[in-house]
Amino acid sequence: MMQTQLTLTTMVRHAEKYFPNKTVISRTLGGVQTIPYRKITERIHRLAGVLKNLGVKKGDKVGTIAWNHHRHLEAYFAIPSIGAVLHTINLRVSPDDLAYIINHAEDKVLLVDEDLFPLLERIKDQISNVEKIIMMTDKDDLPETSLKNVASYESLLQESDPDTALSEDINENDMAGLCYTSGTTGRPKGVVYSHRGIYLHSLALGLKDTAELSEEDTAMPVVPMFHVNAWGIPFAALWFGTTQVLPGPMPTPQILAELIEEHQVTIAAGVPTIWLGLLQALEKGNYDTSSLRCILCGGSAAPKGMIRAFESKYKIPFVHAYGMTETSPIVTLARLKSYQRDLDEEERLELRARQGMVVPGIEIKGVNENREIPHDGEAVGELLVRGPWIADSYYKNDRSEDSFRDGWLHTGDVVNIDEEGSVKIVDRTKDMIKSGGEWISSADLENALMAHEAVFEAAVIAVPDPKWQERPVACVVLKENEKLTEEDMKQFLEPQFAKFWIPDRVLIMDEIPKTSVGKFLKRALRDQVKEQLSLSDPS
Amino acid sequence: MMQTQLTLTTMVRHAEKYFPNKTVISRTLGGVQTIPYRKITERIHRLAGVLKNLGVKKGDKVGTIAWNHHRHLEAYFAIPSIGAVLHTINLRVSPDDLAYIINHAEDKVLLVDEDLFPLLERIKDQISNVEKIIMMTDKDDLPETSLKNVASYESLLQESDPDTALSEDINENDMAGLCYTSGTTGRPKGVVYSHRGIYLHSLALGLKDTAELSEEDTAMPVVPMFHVNAWGIPFAALWFGTTQVLPGPMPTPQILAELIEEHQVTIAAGVPTIWLGLLQALEKGNYDTSSLRCILCGGSAAPKGMIRAFESKYKIPFVHAYGMTETSPIVTLARLKSYQRDLDEEERLELRARQGMVVPGIEIKGVNENREIPHDGEAVGELLVRGPWIADSYYKNDRSEDSFRDGWLHTGDVVNIDEEGSVKIVDRTKDMIKSGGEWISSADLENALMAHEAVFEAAVIAVPDPKWQERPVACVVLKENEKLTEEDMKQFLEPQFAKFWIPDRVLIMDEIPKTSVGKFLKRALRDQVKEQLSLSDPS
Repeated sequence: MMQTQLTLTTMVRHAEKYFPNKTVISRTLGGVQTIPYRKITERIHRLAGVLKNLGVKKGDKVGTIAWNHHRHLEAYFAIPSIGAVLHTINLRVSPDDLAYIINHAEDKVLLVDEDLFPLLERIKDQISNVEKIIMMTDKDDLPETSLKNVASYESLLQESDPDTALSEDINENDMAGLCYTSGTTGRPKGVVYSHRGIYLHSLALGLKDTAELSEEDTAMPVVPMFHVNAWGIPFAALWFGTTQVLPGPMPTPQILAELIEEHQVTIAAGVPTIWLGLLQALEKGNYDTSSLRCILCGGSAAPKGMIRAFESKYKIPFVHAYGMTETSPIVTLARLKSYQRDLDEEERLELRARQGMVVPGIEIKGVNENREIPHDGEAVGELLVRGPWIADSYYKNDRSEDSFRDGWLHTGDVVNIDEEGSVKIVDRTKDMIKSGGEWISSADLENALMAHEAVFEAAVIAVPDPKWQERPVACVVLKENEKLTEEDMKQFLEPQFAKFWIPDRVLIMDEIPKTSVGKFLKRALRDQVKEQLSLSDPS
Repeated sequence: MMQTQLTLTTMVRHAEKYFPNKTVISRTLGGVQTIPYRKITERIHRLAGVLKNLGVKKGDKVGTIAWNHHRHLEAYFAIPSIGAVLHTINLRVSPDDLAYIINHAEDKVLLVDEDLFPLLERIKDQISNVEKIIMMTDKDDLPETSLKNVASYESLLQESDPDTALSEDINENDMAGLCYTSGTTGRPKGVVYSHRGIYLHSLALGLKDTAELSEEDTAMPVVPMFHVNAWGIPFAALWFGTTQVLPGPMPTPQILAELIEEHQVTIAAGVPTIWLGLLQALEKGNYDTSSLRCILCGGSAAPKGMIRAFESKYKIPFVHAYGMTETSPIVTLARLKSYQRDLDEEERLELRARQGMVVPGIEIKGVNENREIPHDGEAVGELLVRGPWIADSYYKNDRSEDSFRDGWLHTGDVVNIDEEGSVKIVDRTKDMIKSGGEWISSADLENALMAHEAVFEAAVIAVPDPKWQERPVACVVLKENEKLTEEDMKQFLEPQFAKFWIPDRVLIMDEIPKTSVGKFLKRALRDQVKEQLSLSDPS
């Protein structure tokens, strides 16, 4: 067989030749515009030219601090297509981490959205390795900024050669992307994506048995393009000629609902928080969402009540998926097997609330005390993952060995696996609560609480206990105008769980602290609760 | 990213873990049996053990001479899973070529169907490199044979270890398969398939935009497993947990129709001859074919009339594909783009009769006199192909350089490519007819003739002409009980073509000579016609 390299340049050439008339619908500060792929691919060549002119060489890092829009999409392909590295930067990290990430990656050039310049201005004295900052804006004139070496994306593109050649000598194992995980402890860690990994992950997204992304689709990645490449959707979508709706800066649930209705989005992807918000928008407004064939949900577990609401009330198929920054990210996807479709609604819902089947190409196992757990839906163990789009280390980081051992990524997620091979995340290894020698799953309690119709969101944490070592405490945010007491919530849980699982306290709160990507920040929550309850560590 | 190798062993492990309850429906001489993948994968391990015990080592060739059935499927995976090479042998080649192929490949072991032993007995003195012949039969006792070193597949499996380990040290570029093309000139040429090629080709078959092979499907490869791996379907199907219907020895159209009805086949794959036969069976019998979501047709161009009959009369979507032994084989597939579905029926039919869009992962171009032809649906050129599942040479063969030049496979097929990128095979480079300096496409004439309701099949060839260098002659086989004259056929063609395109003669024949895989054997036909018309070469 030919030793054809699996690279992003072949994906660009495919889109260029076969899908010039398909479109990208891009929302920016200037409004919503529809741009044909003909134009997008031409601009990819132009941007490649701009970067070459700036002296960007093979292996150089080019950072992006940007929302989901067409310019970011162009950067997704132009940067790796000249052999450089697309470094997508999470715009929600602290200034300190932002400077750390830019320095650690050694970004040579940054592409930054106009409205995100203030983030960079705060750290302007700490990023001396950056030679050029390119502002992505719709405006003709550059707004004022205290940053130096700033140029306008559009002006540079205009002056650049639309026939700039993409690199022919990229090896599929070359770095194409870099993304830092916003961990809850320590400095962010960089994950490297190779051309080969992105290429194979894109194929996986197009399989009939996974997300079945296709030319027929109109895909809206709500998950940010600065977060695990928006789950790889922009890559696969351009390759397959999928119409893309990129929802731009700070998309509210209303904006999302409008985009879905107006552009007949068929598949939208994002974290549970997004879909909770969308549900509320759908309940208030009157939107036509009948075009949606799939809501793809990952990042953290979706409560069963939410899945039910989308499927039963709005007839929108809800597909739960699992992955992480280290896994490109798709590892599992909760599609039913053909013979499971005759199950009754509750059983199907139960299956859909699991994280699902591993996708072809990836291998997984659950491991407990060095033994692989049986597929019985009960035994729990840490999920281990391997495959061609799974990271094998953190970028320039000696903490790699904790996570990457014996050829497997140790995810830190505790799972059970049912007879059919469907995975359920029970908890993070560090979020399991050990009470009197027995495990209590905080995730199970959270799901139960979130199934209560008055509850907006809920987090369960362990607090130290002199007698039981640890005891669960629940933190609950109620929906607007709902009034429930701690006792109500406990009574609601009692019939559902063993007595020792019932949280000692249910605290009604205004909000739960979250990470920059919308996951519960349990470390902060634990501190807050300990203070509130005047608890101290047993030490 | 992890350097996980793209190998068939990961595909076996996937099926084993996640699809033990899915089934293979296998027709053999003993009847039709349904076998769960649990059993198939166990038998793959057992067969791996048998081969290891026989001394089969990494890189050794193991030949198969067999129909489409579960034992052949087991061989498909067991042989490459111990690092050996699955050499599928075309059972329709001449005894001479059969001996040549077995010797050229240096087959160490052969797996042969009971009813195909006579083929081997005829050449038993010419295949001294073969150390062991394993008979695939349902019978408990081995039938008599003049061959030596014969053992029973089932007995060997029974004695073998069901926990035999598959090889862990296979490189994705290692040889996994070998298949000789039954060319119309010279000795058959071997094409090598690597693990990587088969793996990527399988992913391509599962894409929503291609054959969308999936767990939901019941796939029936009618295309023989000795011919380009039955288009790769058995590989992808086992990986994805697709139910497989393997139609066994000499499946008649009636048998196929019955299998489709009884097992609710959703996708069936084969050459036009098969579907012509099936159409006749459907017209005579009363079969329920409503389960079929796709007839996948390749090998040679399907006449438009046939596509129309399946789509309009039987409501079976008919998908035209293009490929060859050298391309694993899928290169293009005639699916409509989303915005082409609103075209009227005739326009859609026109598009469906083309070979279609190149699949993601493969690159193509049409080349005429060293220049790439424009995508205008008119310019013609030779189709060049490259990609990770395209061969880069023939196995141990110095005629390779004709076909493999400058990193591209030169297919010898003449195509045009329309504005949307859809390919149409106009002819083989060597089948184009040059009359008075102008090109005449034999394929266009054939398609027109085959669209006549009284015509069963038609082939058009060039015959030498003193004035025009070459002139077309048509050979036509009529359907049963149809009576048409040469004049009728010419009159039928006249309104459709320029005058100089009309064949000088239309010969009504009883049959057209075919290659072992059902393609017209034009070389033989030319000789026959020349003799019949008492023509001699201008030389």
